[in-house]
Amino acid sequence: MASRYLLLAVTGAVALWAPIAGRYQPTWESLDTRPLPEWYDNAKIGLLIHWGLFSVPSFGSEQFWKDWKGGHPKYVHFMMENYPPHFKYQDFASQFKAEFFNPEEWTEVFEASGARYVILTSKHLEGYAMWPSPHSWNWNVKDVGPNKDLVGKLASAVRSQTPQIRFGVYYSLSEWFNPLYHLDREAHSQSNEFVATKVLPELYGIVTRYHPEIVFADGDELDPDWYWNSTTFLSWLFSSSPVKRTVVVNDRWGSGTFCRHGSYYTCYNPGVLQPHKWERGISLDRQSWGYRREAQVKDYLSINELISQMAETISCGGNFLINVGPSADGRIPPIMEERLRQMGAWIDINGDAVYSSRPWTYQNDTVTPGVWYTSDKDLNLTYAIVLTWPSDCQLFLGAVQPSEETKIFLLGYDPPDVESKRLKFEARPHGITVNFPDMSEVRSKWAWVLVMSGISPSLHS
Amino acid sequence: MASRYLLLAVTGAVALWAPIAGRYQPTWESLDTRPLPEWYDNAKIGLLIHWGLFSVPSFGSEQFWKDWKGGHPKYVHFMMENYPPHFKYQDFASQFKAEFFNPEEWTEVFEASGARYVILTSKHLEGYAMWPSPHSWNWNVKDVGPNKDLVGKLASAVRSQTPQIRFGVYYSLSEWFNPLYHLDREAHSQSNEFVATKVLPELYGIVTRYHPEIVFADGDELDPDWYWNSTTFLSWLFSSSPVKRTVVVNDRWGSGTFCRHGSYYTCYNPGVLQPHKWERGISLDRQSWGYRREAQVKDYLSINELISQMAETISCGGNFLINVGPSADGRIPPIMEERLRQMGAWIDINGDAVYSSRPWTYQNDTVTPGVWYTSDKDLNLTYAIVLTWPSDCQLFLGAVQPSEETKIFLLGYDPPDVESKRLKFEARPHGITVNFPDMSEVRSKWAWVLVMSGISPSLHS
Amino acid sequence: MASRYLLLAVTGAVALWAPIAGRYQPTWESLDTRPLPEWYDNAKIGLLIHWGLFSVPSFGSEQFWKDWKGGHPKYVHFMMENYPPHFKYQDFASQFKAEFFNPEEWTEVFEASGARYVILTSKHLEGYAMWPSPHSWNWNVKDVGPNKDLVGKLASAVRSQTPQIRFGVYYSLSEWFNPLYHLDREAHSQSNEFVATKVLPELYGIVTRYHPEIVFADGDELDPDWYWNSTTFLSWLFSSSPVKRTVVVNDRWGSGTFCRHGSYYTCYNPGVLQPHKWERGISLDRQSWGYRREAQVKDYLSINELISQMAETISCGGNFLINVGPSADGRIPPIMEERLRQMGAWIDINGDAVYSSRPWTYQNDTVTPGVWYTSDKDLNLTYAIVLTWPSDCQLFLGAVQPSEETKIFLLGYDPPDVESKRLKFEARPHGITVNFPDMSEVRSKWAWVLVMSGISPSLHS
Amino acid sequence: MASRYLLLAVTGAVALWAPIAGRYQPTWESLDTRPLPEWYDNAKIGLLIHWGLFSVPSFGSEQFWKDWKGGHPKYVHFMMENYPPHFKYQDFASQFKAEFFNPEEWTEVFEASGARYVILTSKHLEGYAMWPSPHSWNWNVKDVGPNKDLVGKLASAVRSQTPQIRFGVYYSLSEWFNPLYHLDREAHSQSNEFVATKVLPELYGIVTRYHPEIVFADGDELDPDWYWNSTTFLSWLFSSSPVKRTVVVNDRWGSGTFCRHGSYYTCYNPGVLQPHKWERGISLDRQSWGYRREAQVKDYLSINELISQMAETISCGGNFLINVGPSADGRIPPIMEERLRQMGAWIDINGDAVYSSRPWTYQNDTVTPGVWYTSDKDLNLTYAIVLTWPSDCQLFLGAVQPSEETKIFLLGYDPPDVESKRLKFEARPHGITVNFPDMSEVRSKWAWVLVMSGISPSLHS
Repeated sequence: MASRYLLLAVTGAVALWAPIAGRYQPTWESLDTRPLPEWYDNAKIGLLIHWGLFSVPSFGSEQFWKDWKGGHPKYVHFMMENYPPHFKYQDFASQFKAEFFNPEEWTEVFEASGARYVILTSKHLEGYAMWPSPHSWNWNVKDVGPNKDLVGKLASAVRSQTPQIRFGVYYSLSEWFNPLYHLDREAHSQSNEFVATKVLPELYGIVTRYHPEIVFADGDELDPDWYWNSTTFLSWLFSSSPVKRTVVVNDRWGSGTFCRHGSYYTCYNPGVLQPHKWERGISLDRQSWGYRREAQVKDYLSINELISQMAETISCGGNFLINVGPSADGRIPPIMEERLRQMGAWIDINGDAVYSSRPWTYQNDTVTPGVWYTSDKDLNLTYAIVLTWPSDCQLFLGAVQPSEETKIFLLGYDPPDVESKRLKFEARPHGITVNFPDMSEVRSKWAWVLVMSGISPSLHS
Repeated sequence: MASRYLLLAVTGAVALWAPIAGRYQPTWESLDTRPLPEWYDNAKIGLLIHWGLFSVPSFGSEQFWKDWKGGHPKYVHFMMENYPPHFKYQDFASQFKAEFFNPEEWTEVFEASGARYVILTSKHLEGYAMWPSPHSWNWNVKDVGPNKDLVGKLASAVRSQTPQIRFGVYYSLSEWFNPLYHLDREAHSQSNEFVATKVLPELYGIVTRYHPEIVFADGDELDPDWYWNSTTFLSWLFSSSPVKRTVVVNDRWGSGTFCRHGSYYTCYNPGVLQPHKWERGISLDRQSWGYRREAQVKDYLSINELISQMAETISCGGNFLINVGPSADGRIPPIMEERLRQMGAWIDINGDAVYSSRPWTYQNDTVTPGVWYTSDKDLNLTYAIVLTWPSDCQLFLGAVQPSEETKIFLLGYDPPDVESKRLKFEARPHGITVNFPDMSEVRSKWAWVLVMSGISPSLHS
Repeated sequence: MASRYLLLAVTGAVALWAPIAGRYQPTWESLDTRPLPEWYDNAKIGLLIHWGLFSVPSFGSEQFWKDWKGGHPKYVHFMMENYPPHFKYQDFASQFKAEFFNPEEWTEVFEASGARYVILTSKHLEGYAMWPSPHSWNWNVKDVGPNKDLVGKLASAVRSQTPQIRFGVYYSLSEWFNPLYHLDREAHSQSNEFVATKVLPELYGIVTRYHPEIVFADGDELDPDWYWNSTTFLSWLFSSSPVKRTVVVNDRWGSGTFCRHGSYYTCYNPGVLQPHKWERGISLDRQSWGYRREAQVKDYLSINELISQMAETISCGGNFLINVGPSADGRIPPIMEERLRQMGAWIDINGDAVYSSRPWTYQNDTVTPGVWYTSDKDLNLTYAIVLTWPSDCQLFLGAVQPSEETKIFLLGYDPPDVESKRLKFEARPHGITVNFPDMSEVRSKWAWVLVMSGISPSLHS
Repeated sequence: MASRYLLLAVTGAVALWAPIAGRYQPTWESLDTRPLPEWYDNAKIGLLIHWGLFSVPSFGSEQFWKDWKGGHPKYVHFMMENYPPHFKYQDFASQFKAEFFNPEEWTEVFEASGARYVILTSKHLEGYAMWPSPHSWNWNVKDVGPNKDLVGKLASAVRSQTPQIRFGVYYSLSEWFNPLYHLDREAHSQSNEFVATKVLPELYGIVTRYHPEIVFADGDELDPDWYWNSTTFLSWLFSSSPVKRTVVVNDRWGSGTFCRHGSYYTCYNPGVLQPHKWERGISLDRQSWGYRREAQVKDYLSINELISQMAETISCGGNFLINVGPSADGRIPPIMEERLRQMGAWIDINGDAVYSSRPWTYQNDTVTPGVWYTSDKDLNLTYAIVLTWPSDCQLFLGAVQPSEETKIFLLGYDPPDVESKRLKFEARPHGITVNFPDMSEVRSKWAWVLVMSGISPSLHS
């Protein structure tokens, strides 16, 4: 007799993920030497899907359970007003049906949005597994609720329908109310039954089963990385897992790792160029990552805000992760679909400034606000994303120095007369003034992209 | 002892609604002499709210019950897939909670849309009463479901918050499955127990209780108006009811009345000027009047389509009734809110061409498609609603003949230099060419309104 | 055009139930002349079935709705503790499934109990119709809840399976919360819309449809019989209805009729011989007519109590109506089934003293308590129902005077030796002493019946 | 960092339950040397409570889940007929409310039944824990369903109210559908993750928390005892646990242990004296251990059958375990309460022949069927439990040989005249004939107990 678990945790280490010479050791020193897989920096736009049991009450935010049990009056009142006194969060599971879930339709929307990767919450801090995890019996999509493998169905649809979109999973290490986790915490992390019997088996399991190319950890704040066995898992992920060559991970693998370790960092909203690859997540609903039924139009980002934030992020070297909150019955709410399609319509015209772009010398213009720069991969072309149509159709760019070779075009401006495609501009003492064409002849809405060749960065910053 | 019902049906006629000399007789001859209350023609834009038990399954359309029971495979399959075998439509009532219903928020959206009246389905063909009707015990909002007087709450909010918006009710005369109605029908309308004990008491009751200024009848197709006692009711409504001066009714009061009797007709979509006041109802969701959860962005009218249809309708003398389908939990879906706010943003700039306008000599331009005309009340100004921005900013209008007095402005174009507000134009042999300004200086989106004075209709139609 | 309702209420009277010469007028003078159909007095034992929506909460009593809404703390607390805040009594309807209802099994139990008639609550004061009443749309068994015609199914099973058992209906005239009834009451019964449009159509309808041989009215206390049109209905019932020859009614047809008019009276528990046929209803659960889940064994009548009350009732000329409360899922709770079968087992042996019996000169013995007398139809035999086995097997009967012809037997005592069947007795100055046999040779349990011939009533009362 | 789980499974063995010198080793040789705690043999009558999620559908039997998933048509049809298509067994958890559960009332019934111990299903093969097990998150009474610690509440009530009744737990080792168990089985028990992370933590936990004096294992058939780590657990239980002195266990600790190891065996229904202490479990409902709503009176054991089986069991050295199936709302069904109270009423009179009794030389009479013998603790008195009242009040006992000292009494026969208490008897060639008194003077019903002193076993078997 031998315990399979023991095999897994002790001897199994050798067999399954022991670092082989030339691969990654379970130390940050070693793990940090791994180069970022190229696809990720090129992708630029991703989608995050917050879906889970919190989508059933669909009220307040995806933190519903924690806030309710924490005594937040808004949630306490909501429950008192609408549910029987002994109703528990777990009772929502029976009401999670996903009856309208159509992964092909979702994927079509993902594609239309222009995103190049999509990350699904495989397990939020509520602990409910969105795949039939054997280590979460009766607390997963197959045993209670939809009776479907949601992770699996979405992964399949994305892969078969849109090869250009990579599939990833969000996985929260901690769980608000898992008693085994709380027993470990009471033991000041000197025991790790929760990690050994739940978290690690699930992490290995989900990677082995679904081959996600992003593993986005969360809920790690209170415990050190050694409690989570993070470096051990990552050394396996990078060295031996089926996605070892392409997988990308974020930076939340235990307290102290945030913005210090991981394929990319998630330090939000810097506004300036970052030395390490980073990602900015932003939710279409300003107040929640999960779907809130009570959200109104004013709560959703407008397409202008969305493009503005995307431009800033990409110019500063980040990826832009747009969060969508589907409903419990399995739909992407049309207002979100509308924003994604608007985003995609814009990118369809202006994608050259986005995909595979690189930061330029300047991130935003030195004189005119609302202008963000990117460069093409080979640094031959400079893109200026202009958020506001210039008054009198005259845009002054202080960061740009023209030359005799300078050519400037506007994406989405394709007059029949090819000659007039080239925009007129005038060199000025500290920059140039670009003449915009008649707006009614320009296809792009909400923001406009200038493509400039033969220019150099201004020396007058 | 006397039966109150008998009083009502027999002698009560005298006391309650017998036509008094000088008022309206219960005949169409007499009723048709009543002038249309002026407010209605001036209002131009109304909202229709389809809300009821069909909002609970929220699938397919508001005809769910009829289609399901009629064996339509889509509905049969939906029920088989999602509900227990003996589940009945009536069981949806317990699930109609309207827990997020906030009539003040709704009214704020109504106001933002530019609508001047709003009509709620007080009782759809399903028969469920949206107010606590004593003649529909246990089949109304107070007895099963929301536990709130939805008609009453909405009427109050609209009246107290937005005096410019009139409140009306939709009321279906027939009911798909009411056994008393079917017994009457089996008797070939030679009995009218259903009308005498249900329809008439409810119609008198709802008018007396809520003072609706529109009574929109429906579901009348199979039975003659005398079965419904329509003229009797209308003579009371026009002569003695609390809304006798301002109330407006549609044209569905029994077979044979459609497009022949009533304050206004609901013959849809004529495209040409109509001799009698009419109203065009159109749903934001192309496929349903009630909320359908499965609807996607493509199923909703775009704002361009909406404005296009509105322009055509008003130019042809109609009112434009935009249908909204709230959800069972009491929300206006954000995608609908977005359309309504877009509509209102447009009207906010261009409302002069809409409110209180009158049809002009021509309804649409004789040469350029997508141009619809209206006139101001005093017929001094002519409005051209231009659906497509003209190429090269040059719009040719074939229906307009300029004079020396001619002035042309564009609504939403307010350059700092007042002089340049007046658009340049050139008289042509059979019309004029108007020069549009730089589009980026125009506030209006989606469509544009020219205001012309000193012009006359072209003689070359 | 004519109103069917008008026909029914006015001219229809002539056609449908106008008293024909020689039959019964709609006056109590006339109605009271009708002789009691013989079957009823012979039947002696009936069952009353209290079943309805109150069987869903199945808590407190069948008065749940009234008591809860009346603020009774027990019910208010029960609802607060177990249901969402806006839950309504009507919401119980969806939970009334009767999924285990098997009318054939019920009927088998009825038969085993020895009962000769069974009365089902076709509509309790809650107003919910246990048959698909067209005048109670969406508040009946077909439209909400079981989706079965419970009255119809039970009537069929009883008739086809047990010809000796008559089927009857309980029907409550008033309804606690019907708004039409309350409007009539507010009008001090000067209107009767409720009666004209609901009660009378239902009463005529249920009789015409199911041919019940008992119509047990209830809920009549507050209103005079003329409000209910009771005499009109009864004159039709007795003169023209399909059950005119055999139907029996109780005495609750409006205030003032109780114990004064009707086929039989329901003045409870007299203890002495009554001049008019009467019926005593008693519930197996001491505290409720409807099923209460919280009832314990001590709350149920023991078989001894049941036989004791039955003996007293029948001796005093009454019929004995045993109430049973099925559960919402359609079962007769086994503890009730046990009592009914015990009752039937006793009657199986001792039925001669019950069925078709007549009161004797004395109702109970003048000396020994717990001895109740009946007589056979022809008054040749006297039965003494002895509730307690006599000590020393010697029973003294003070009300009996023996003669030389006197023979005494004990039902259920059948020794192989026929001779010894005849019990020994001794004449005493003021009665007789009967020698009981060895108890272990007697089949009857709980109570014992002596059959005496050739005796006369004692003159020493 | 160290894994608490590792501590528990490896080194913890030493610390927590390593056999200390003089105590029990984790081998059957050692464990089998432990004497049976005396209280158990004296108790004779116990109750088994089958309560769990199977009490929610309450149909068929407590094997509902297994039978349904196994395709048994009866269950498949029941689910299809009454539930939505995607309804899962787990969805029953939300409906398990135990809202009427009153442990004090239950305990009062236990006491009235005469039982001396009560065993609750703490976890049936469905795996649902009836206490807040941290190793069964969201699949236990606190997280889903009743929101109460049912094991804890019942243990407390029993202990505080009835010190004479011992509290025990039933615990199923295997679980029909636990994926970790099935993974172990697929590995042919060469892994035991299920046992290590679920079964053992729960067994240690429940004993430590509730101090049960009986641990009744079940569901062990397919796997060897070493898979379950049974001897390890039992050595701790007998040597170090808080109940080490008084705890009693059954014989189902892995294939091969049945009827071979354990405090007592559960080989059913032998009919002859057994060499090892044993227990016979019998359910009041012949067809199910869990409550079945569809059960009728005929499905329940009569009190005569119950006493008959009890007499046979005790005479043969067994304990008698009567199974009760409460309902999901927390009630002991009254028909079961009735049987328990009947049982207790009988034992109240005849308990001397039961409690602390010992088997006699003969188990049943050699001549007269339906007579079972026991002896008092000191073997001075012999009890004959007589199931049928003898005809002519003459009972012949072939197994008894009288002497001059012989005295015979009947329990529950207490004539005022003390002299006549002693029953008359006559010595016969091969036994004695005992004269029974007048049955009507005997308190006991259903069965009768003779107490005999001064007799010896017949030599003529």
